[in-house]
Amino acid sequence: MLALMMDRPLTLPSILEHAAAYHGDREVVSRSVEGPIHRYGYRDALARSKQMAKALLALGVQRGDRVATLAWSTHRHFELYFAVTGIGAVLHTINPRLHDDQIVWVADHAEDSVLLFDITFSDQVAQLAPRMKTVKTLVAMTDAAHAPPGVLVYEDLLAAQTPEFEWPDIDERSASGLCYTSGTTGNPKGVLYGHRSTVLHALALALPDAFDLSARDAVMPCAQMYHANAWCTPYAAPLVGAKLVLPGRALDGPSVCELIAGEEVSFLLGVPTIWVGVADHLDQTGGKLTSVRTIAVGGSAPTAALVARIEDRLGGQVRQIWGMTETSPLGVINTPLPAHAGEDRAATLQRKLKQGRGLWGVDLRIVGEDGGLLPRDGKSSGALQVRGPWVASAYFKQDGQQAFTADGWFDTGDIATLDGEGYLRLTDRAKDVIKSGGEWISTLDLEEAVCSHPAVAMAAAVGVPHPKWDERPLLLVTLRPGQSADPEVLKAHVAERVAKWWTPDEVRIVDALPIGPTGKVLKRELRETLAAQTAAVSRT
Amino acid sequence: MLALMMDRPLTLPSILEHAAAYHGDREVVSRSVEGPIHRYGYRDALARSKQMAKALLALGVQRGDRVATLAWSTHRHFELYFAVTGIGAVLHTINPRLHDDQIVWVADHAEDSVLLFDITFSDQVAQLAPRMKTVKTLVAMTDAAHAPPGVLVYEDLLAAQTPEFEWPDIDERSASGLCYTSGTTGNPKGVLYGHRSTVLHALALALPDAFDLSARDAVMPCAQMYHANAWCTPYAAPLVGAKLVLPGRALDGPSVCELIAGEEVSFLLGVPTIWVGVADHLDQTGGKLTSVRTIAVGGSAPTAALVARIEDRLGGQVRQIWGMTETSPLGVINTPLPAHAGEDRAATLQRKLKQGRGLWGVDLRIVGEDGGLLPRDGKSSGALQVRGPWVASAYFKQDGQQAFTADGWFDTGDIATLDGEGYLRLTDRAKDVIKSGGEWISTLDLEEAVCSHPAVAMAAAVGVPHPKWDERPLLLVTLRPGQSADPEVLKAHVAERVAKWWTPDEVRIVDALPIGPTGKVLKRELRETLAAQTAAVSRT
Repeated sequence: MLALMMDRPLTLPSILEHAAAYHGDREVVSRSVEGPIHRYGYRDALARSKQMAKALLALGVQRGDRVATLAWSTHRHFELYFAVTGIGAVLHTINPRLHDDQIVWVADHAEDSVLLFDITFSDQVAQLAPRMKTVKTLVAMTDAAHAPPGVLVYEDLLAAQTPEFEWPDIDERSASGLCYTSGTTGNPKGVLYGHRSTVLHALALALPDAFDLSARDAVMPCAQMYHANAWCTPYAAPLVGAKLVLPGRALDGPSVCELIAGEEVSFLLGVPTIWVGVADHLDQTGGKLTSVRTIAVGGSAPTAALVARIEDRLGGQVRQIWGMTETSPLGVINTPLPAHAGEDRAATLQRKLKQGRGLWGVDLRIVGEDGGLLPRDGKSSGALQVRGPWVASAYFKQDGQQAFTADGWFDTGDIATLDGEGYLRLTDRAKDVIKSGGEWISTLDLEEAVCSHPAVAMAAAVGVPHPKWDERPLLLVTLRPGQSADPEVLKAHVAERVAKWWTPDEVRIVDALPIGPTGKVLKRELRETLAAQTAAVSRT
Repeated sequence: MLALMMDRPLTLPSILEHAAAYHGDREVVSRSVEGPIHRYGYRDALARSKQMAKALLALGVQRGDRVATLAWSTHRHFELYFAVTGIGAVLHTINPRLHDDQIVWVADHAEDSVLLFDITFSDQVAQLAPRMKTVKTLVAMTDAAHAPPGVLVYEDLLAAQTPEFEWPDIDERSASGLCYTSGTTGNPKGVLYGHRSTVLHALALALPDAFDLSARDAVMPCAQMYHANAWCTPYAAPLVGAKLVLPGRALDGPSVCELIAGEEVSFLLGVPTIWVGVADHLDQTGGKLTSVRTIAVGGSAPTAALVARIEDRLGGQVRQIWGMTETSPLGVINTPLPAHAGEDRAATLQRKLKQGRGLWGVDLRIVGEDGGLLPRDGKSSGALQVRGPWVASAYFKQDGQQAFTADGWFDTGDIATLDGEGYLRLTDRAKDVIKSGGEWISTLDLEEAVCSHPAVAMAAAVGVPHPKWDERPLLLVTLRPGQSADPEVLKAHVAERVAKWWTPDEVRIVDALPIGPTGKVLKRELRETLAAQTAAVSRT
């Protein structure tokens, strides 16, 4: 027996329609690529999105076509989030930090027909577009005064259309977005989001135990709009009527601080390195922020010292989040339970080092090497697998099928534990894990241990071959500006904090660590460099 | 092009599975019908729900079958919310305050096969069940010691099953619940909820700008579980891991206060009369509550004086909600916008008299007598029509089809305005509206005006026939205990607060007003009584 309730599809344009009708004057504020701060209300954003939707239809974009962007977080990118998806096309947000060859590769793989780009990338696009097999139309996301020659101009396309437009009917299971993983191993793999998955994710994201977003918030994503849709906030903010602050390309400390203070931002999100930059800037200027309520930190795990520094400096509470492009990205988020009322600062910081607690919608399980389910005891670590309505069921064109289990779960490639309270703690990426004497050593725990030393800026633990133990840990560290440290002192510091057999055989101070396009240390590159050095030493 | 995201259905058992896995010890506390307070965690609730699901299957309940309850808000009713729906059957929650004939009528109309009842209703069921055409199985929701003879016993059925059970696959569009409107005009009409509609509604309900529910809340619905599923909180609370406090049958001031204080309830909901009882009790005892954060008030509109009294006495903030059985029930809810920061108490109270602001998921429109859309100016009042994924698309067995428009909206039968900020204000029920000289007079505004007089307890404005103006308002009022008032003084009090031509020709003090099964004044009955009196006068 079917229910007798209205069969309204969950579609993305409904979000902006709601924001325009009930929060029409609530602002979307952007640091434009041309320079000035741009501001308008959701009512205007809807009108312009509709104009752009009509312009795309006039360019011949059809349902299911992939429309690519190479762009920062601005109001025009925001408009495309609705204009492209609202006509049933698929928004492919290309990460401009990929290598040129990879940018061409993903555009070809996605079979993009139109490429819209910020003028930052004009020269790059002029060079790469001819190499792309399917891109026929180039649009500079600017006005005629700032556009390079030989391409269409966003503002001109838009001006040619009126805002009168009814969004077409869309099946909620239709694809809406395409985002490629950074691909540190092998080619990038595409995650194909849908209207239903994104709307459900945006709802879950706004819940009190996730991002806790209301009409009284000002939300500033410091993850770019090509990073898993800026963690979906360009959809969640209008859904609740929050102000949306888009930082353009400038994620440096001074620029971010200026927007937080000027726009009274209450909710921030981004990878740990962003907050280091913000805290450094506030240290240097003695500036104080008063509006921040919550800083969601994800992408890589912050240390306890960094959590404390972010909270002291920015004046809000850190909520660690774990997720991936494949999980839209919300997997787990660290919010307290009633049992944590009254815990002291030290206990709070320790709790906040866990990646977070399971929320309705994302089922979690930990699987051992034999394929059996591991207990939720906070100790048994194994492969983290997830399932839910905003988790990928496959990669685009069926790449990387081995990540999807026969019984319908996604194998994240992370190694983790789950505790009795439902908190997830990552111990490693599966590909980074160090296996020594048949047992796993957590690289994240080693890095956390050495980073608690005041002289240390960053750290990376990698496994190096060992004749007896198979692998042993090597800990590479960079120091804070003006600091010095004896490697043996650092080794002793670590030894006090981890199991004896986990203590690295060597702590090595280096000038820098290789950082990938999403701000993470490239451990594969480190291992290759180390192997090459070892080989060179062997040859001499 | 279809998205490549997991096609996980939105089903009700997933909510209790989540609560059991991540909030297994979080309590469901009930005032049992037998007397004592009952408490257990979501883990136990899931196990018992599964046992009951198996017991129902053993009784021959099949997919789509209607399973009825005649029961208060307790843990057993909570278990049935999942046990019945989780096997694909439909939970029909009968309102025990209906007349006996209506109870038999709805059981027959729903074609209920099983009736589970609280022992409060043992005699009534013994009398009524033989008159029901389809009910074959009777189950007393108690243990063997308390059960009446000749019926099955809930605890015995449960004890015969183990908790090992996998919920069957369910299409998310399947029916899950059946709730009849109180039917002040004509026969009751059935609203057939579904898994999808209820899950989406529960998610929306928990958002910060709705009920704002987190794992740190203790939620106590003071609307019974047969009233639009206690406003869906038995689903929303486990979805977020909140404690759930179920008051049994006792909604009097002392009983409610005892549970609020003893269980540290943070979130309350119910009709205005509940809070009058609670405030009266606190007045009498001088008691003070410290845990209450929010009191959601709906069902009928509170006066400003009552809002102030509730907030002062209970120590939380009132959020008015408007909704209906047909809207699951969340239609709009009154939460502040950033523009309201810093408003004074008087302005806050005036704002809180509006029913609330539109949320994503419920589209609202105001339609004039000519069928045209009216502006959102806070003045133009017309028929309130709504649309959304948790709004009914038809009544069970296609009764009352005239309430559903050809273009897919539900006509609520309420007369309302929408203002520029998106706040809805009810002016009347369509059937209660007073039309005088071709213009509408708002009965709610007249009642609000006279209730601001300190001597007045309740009021009801009704239209009486008038030779020149077609109708003129008559205002019936009851006085607070120990108070007296001159009707002419009350009339002058109203005259100062409304348009001159709205002022009622007569204010009449009466001993009592007729109250219906959902706590609302029965205006139809009032009009009939007045008409009979007028006819009697004419005859003499």
